[in-house]
Amino acid sequence: MIGVDWGTTSLRAYRIEAGGAVADRLDRPGGILTVPAGCFPDALREAIGPWLAAGETRVLLCGMVGSRQGWVEAPYLRCPAGPAEIAAATIPVPFDGAEVRLVPGLTTEDASGIPDVMRGEETKLVALATRLDDALACLPGTHSKWARLESDRVAHFTTHMTGEVFAAVSQHTILARTSAEGPERPEAFARGVRRAGQPGGLLHHLFGARTLHLMDRLEQAETRSYLSGLLIGHEISAALAETRAAQVDLVGAAGLAALYAEALRIAGVAVRTHDPDLVAAGLHHIGRSLGWT
Amino acid sequence: MIGVDWGTTSLRAYRIEAGGAVADRLDRPGGILTVPAGCFPDALREAIGPWLAAGETRVLLCGMVGSRQGWVEAPYLRCPAGPAEIAAATIPVPFDGAEVRLVPGLTTEDASGIPDVMRGEETKLVALATRLDDALACLPGTHSKWARLESDRVAHFTTHMTGEVFAAVSQHTILARTSAEGPERPEAFARGVRRAGQPGGLLHHLFGARTLHLMDRLEQAETRSYLSGLLIGHEISAALAETRAAQVDLVGAAGLAALYAEALRIAGVAVRTHDPDLVAAGLHHIGRSLGWT
Repeated sequence: MIGVDWGTTSLRAYRIEAGGAVADRLDRPGGILTVPAGCFPDALREAIGPWLAAGETRVLLCGMVGSRQGWVEAPYLRCPAGPAEIAAATIPVPFDGAEVRLVPGLTTEDASGIPDVMRGEETKLVALATRLDDALACLPGTHSKWARLESDRVAHFTTHMTGEVFAAVSQHTILARTSAEGPERPEAFARGVRRAGQPGGLLHHLFGARTLHLMDRLEQAETRSYLSGLLIGHEISAALAETRAAQVDLVGAAGLAALYAEALRIAGVAVRTHDPDLVAAGLHHIGRSLGWT
Repeated sequence: MIGVDWGTTSLRAYRIEAGGAVADRLDRPGGILTVPAGCFPDALREAIGPWLAAGETRVLLCGMVGSRQGWVEAPYLRCPAGPAEIAAATIPVPFDGAEVRLVPGLTTEDASGIPDVMRGEETKLVALATRLDDALACLPGTHSKWARLESDRVAHFTTHMTGEVFAAVSQHTILARTSAEGPERPEAFARGVRRAGQPGGLLHHLFGARTLHLMDRLEQAETRSYLSGLLIGHEISAALAETRAAQVDLVGAAGLAALYAEALRIAGVAVRTHDPDLVAAGLHHIGRSLGWT
């Protein structure tokens, strides 16, 4: 089978053998934002044509290609959901010469009944869930996801807009003056994480990043790391307050995963880190539930 | 005496009679950011020359003119501080033909020892404190101030970066797509305020403004008001958790004050609103402590 992670800014495709081994892969720009309406079949054929010519007949797509801005909208599937439920909810799309299906995103509601959504992460989580017993997984990023995994399924999850708020606040408020990019400052990051555990609230804590500098208690070159620690610390406090987990399974790019691991350590939580390259394995698990392998 | 509130973007001057009545006033652009280094005396004379020519000899300045970016830096004065302490900490600046002094800003530390600062608001608060018994005052805005007033003095205060975070998040994140300016939507604002009182944390609640819209449970035209309620609600929750006040004295421009009054009502707190035009009265109180009137 062929698995494709087709996101907003990139397309990653995998030729996957029946046992799950990745025989070939490609990674290119050409995210869905570059594809004109009606041109998704051509764009897909352009990317994976050689593998189709070599005999592949089944293609499973995940990511934003299944969103309202993508090829066809694959409606969100309600949690709990694992490979079987997700496979049953995949959406077929017309394509000459191969069976092509879209993986749906997932939806859930928090304790207050407010909806949450993910699209793309469900495929990584399917792969992670099959490797772990019940677990709390954290996928840090622009929109960080915290997911409760139970019996190979995604039982529940919450999103925190941490990465995007960090970018907006560090570039578009008074803190921008002192938040230019530079080397990580681990001690300042740790101060920010610890600060997040104190009373006062995030909106007050943010102003402290300015006043500490004004009072010569935080160097200009430390402010960005302090702010990063503050926001990640608030995310972790809120996520752990909801779940009361003693261990977190962390899936992210190396640099960001290291920051979250340190922040979780400060919060007194055990951490296991995982290779973030999980999409092909997740697509294979869903493909198996479809009877494709 | 002459009182001047000289901020970042504007200059407001008051000719104040001995009893405190404002005999004349002017309000113009020409904030400190428009004044080249070394040109503050000329800029001041240009604004209030006619009043000097008419016999005024004492000028008291407050606001960002006393900051590092202003005329001369007037160091922050530690709380508690009232008219007497502030008068004693004013800074003289050289000026031909009149005695000119700068009002210092105030500083305090929160329960965790993190510093906080204000510059300009102290003058309004001095005026408010003389009219009230002990009170908790809220001055909403870009950097909202919550000040505990005791015995005519500012005993303590905290800053929340609410207005600036609202601007950054509503313009520079995924929420910008649905947060265009439009008429206030009071019901959506109230939903945001109530949401702030639920578990999950601000970074999670922010993402809910997107998912509620995605799930057709919040209209696009409601998103901006919902976001405003969410942030103001978080500010109020944090400020009240610190102080446990049952009543708040609100000082702000009409539109913003109305939003805060509604959010405080939802939070179950009594509100008194005050005319925000307090600077001249505050400058007069400090001038009286200087023996000027």
